[in-house]
Amino acid sequence: MEVLFLGTGAGVPSKGRNVTAAALQLLEERGAVWLFDCGEATQHQILHTSLRPRRIEKIFITHLHGDHIFGLPGLLGSRSFQGGDTPLTVYGPKGIRAFVEVSLAVSTTHVKYPLHVVEIEGDGRIFEDGQFSVEAARLAHGIESYGYRIVEKDIPGPLLVEKLQERGIRPGPLFKKLKNGETVTLEDGTVLHGHEFVGPPQKGRIVTILGDTRYCEAGVRLAQNADVLVHEATFAAEDAQQAHDYYHSTTKQAAQAAQLADAKRLILTHISSRYQGEDFERLLQEAREVFANTEMAFDFKKFAIER
Amino acid sequence: MEVLFLGTGAGVPSKGRNVTAAALQLLEERGAVWLFDCGEATQHQILHTSLRPRRIEKIFITHLHGDHIFGLPGLLGSRSFQGGDTPLTVYGPKGIRAFVEVSLAVSTTHVKYPLHVVEIEGDGRIFEDGQFSVEAARLAHGIESYGYRIVEKDIPGPLLVEKLQERGIRPGPLFKKLKNGETVTLEDGTVLHGHEFVGPPQKGRIVTILGDTRYCEAGVRLAQNADVLVHEATFAAEDAQQAHDYYHSTTKQAAQAAQLADAKRLILTHISSRYQGEDFERLLQEAREVFANTEMAFDFKKFAIER
Ligand SMILES: [Zn+2]
Ligand SMILES: [Zn+2]
Repeated sequence: MEVLFLGTGAGVPSKGRNVTAAALQLLEERGAVWLFDCGEATQHQILHTSLRPRRIEKIFITHLHGDHIFGLPGLLGSRSFQGGDTPLTVYGPKGIRAFVEVSLAVSTTHVKYPLHVVEIEGDGRIFEDGQFSVEAARLAHGIESYGYRIVEKDIPGPLLVEKLQERGIRPGPLFKKLKNGETVTLEDGTVLHGHEFVGPPQKGRIVTILGDTRYCEAGVRLAQNADVLVHEATFAAEDAQQAHDYYHSTTKQAAQAAQLADAKRLILTHISSRYQGEDFERLLQEAREVFANTEMAFDFKKFAIER
Repeated sequence: MEVLFLGTGAGVPSKGRNVTAAALQLLEERGAVWLFDCGEATQHQILHTSLRPRRIEKIFITHLHGDHIFGLPGLLGSRSFQGGDTPLTVYGPKGIRAFVEVSLAVSTTHVKYPLHVVEIEGDGRIFEDGQFSVEAARLAHGIESYGYRIVEKDIPGPLLVEKLQERGIRPGPLFKKLKNGETVTLEDGTVLHGHEFVGPPQKGRIVTILGDTRYCEAGVRLAQNADVLVHEATFAAEDAQQAHDYYHSTTKQAAQAAQLADAKRLILTHISSRYQGEDFERLLQEAREVFANTEMAFDFKKFAIER
């Protein structure tokens, strides 16, 4: 599991940072990539990575500002052109369907895979299967903007086969029951408790990726105990007034959210193009004063998320 | 007057060629730039040039395929963000208005300049002022695709003041009449013919830029005596069947159009990404066998158009 940043700028593209997109790579876990936002030229950025558009299984749009969605029609088309034929689901605020449908219809783009668009209606779970669940909650931006909490389910521990064999117990239907944690009584009256023969479960990871937002409680809630929190930091701490006026966060506000959420790690992104070169170290230090385990995203930087 | 190519590829972006856009730079002539097509990431390409989005006065869309329009919403938004406040007109086939309006509305992009969208309805003149006229004609593509003939008006020759002074004629309202080519009778009965006192006019230039198309008569007509014809050459000569099937042209077909039109110069663009590196020289030679004065466009290549 890795987060690969494809665009880490704010508002308009600059030479150093493209507009927003981040790929949550779940290749080991499910052979898939989940994309978060899709600013213009996201498909161009992808050309410079090993990411294959056909691998993209889901695209989560945080909000409908152009710097987060204008790359979507092109990517959807190219995914088809490049042979992608597996289903793709786009999640986003109300309006995302009209944008996708009109863009594809006007351009007569006929994608050759099942394309689903899910418009989010308020806070709550928007996806769940045996492996992952995704929860969305509305943040504090000028327009409807969502954060996403991606929760990997725990992987049950392995059956301790050697320990059973030491007790002289032979493989059979019994093993499955024990693995499921059930209590089993043998013919000779011996009682076996599943939990004694099952190793510790592998804890699932939690990744929280927020859209543009002021510091807000919903963001903190989504990030509770997250292994990684990806938070916007459009402005330096000293520009808090502007951050407030434009519904964005400062470095320190992002760090406060990570701290209050007891997140393990914070990655700052969506950095205004007013900051360049040496500024980045300063922005990072501002956040680290509040939350030590902070890093900054750059285009093409990849962060491994270990268990 | 220059043509600056911003994207010279076909269908999908590649590392070497972005999707289609070309800027006709009329900085000396009218302090403006006219853009032809606006594929995704055109604004990103512009970042690597000296072109200023606020200078863009008109955008001519040839057809609505995604590789020609998906950069439009982002560019329109960024032009405003970067302080562009002069009017901008977008011309294109029916459907371009819906695409622009829905994209800007969904993304709540409020441009701070007067934005006009003109949907072309069949062949004919779509713009004219004292300096330029633009004529559109429908080409032969799978969907409605237009070519544009940009005609610079002749600049009248200068009044030959010295010649008049040699004849003892003093400056006055008379001069203006002569400059306009009128015939004037002096009080002493001398008859002066304007054309004798006016230098030769500076011939205006003709630039023809075609959208995606098979070889077609409309293209030849638009390119008649053009100083420069920009013609797509998606395929090599040997791939004529594919060119036909996909409503595109080969190198040789583009060259034939230039030849039949008596154009002075041909620039090939919209090159399929199947051709790379050494192929380009071969493609160029194929065209030159038919029309010697052929060049090939590359991203960021600029062609001066002399009078
Ligand atoms: Zn943004
Ligand atoms: Zn095309």
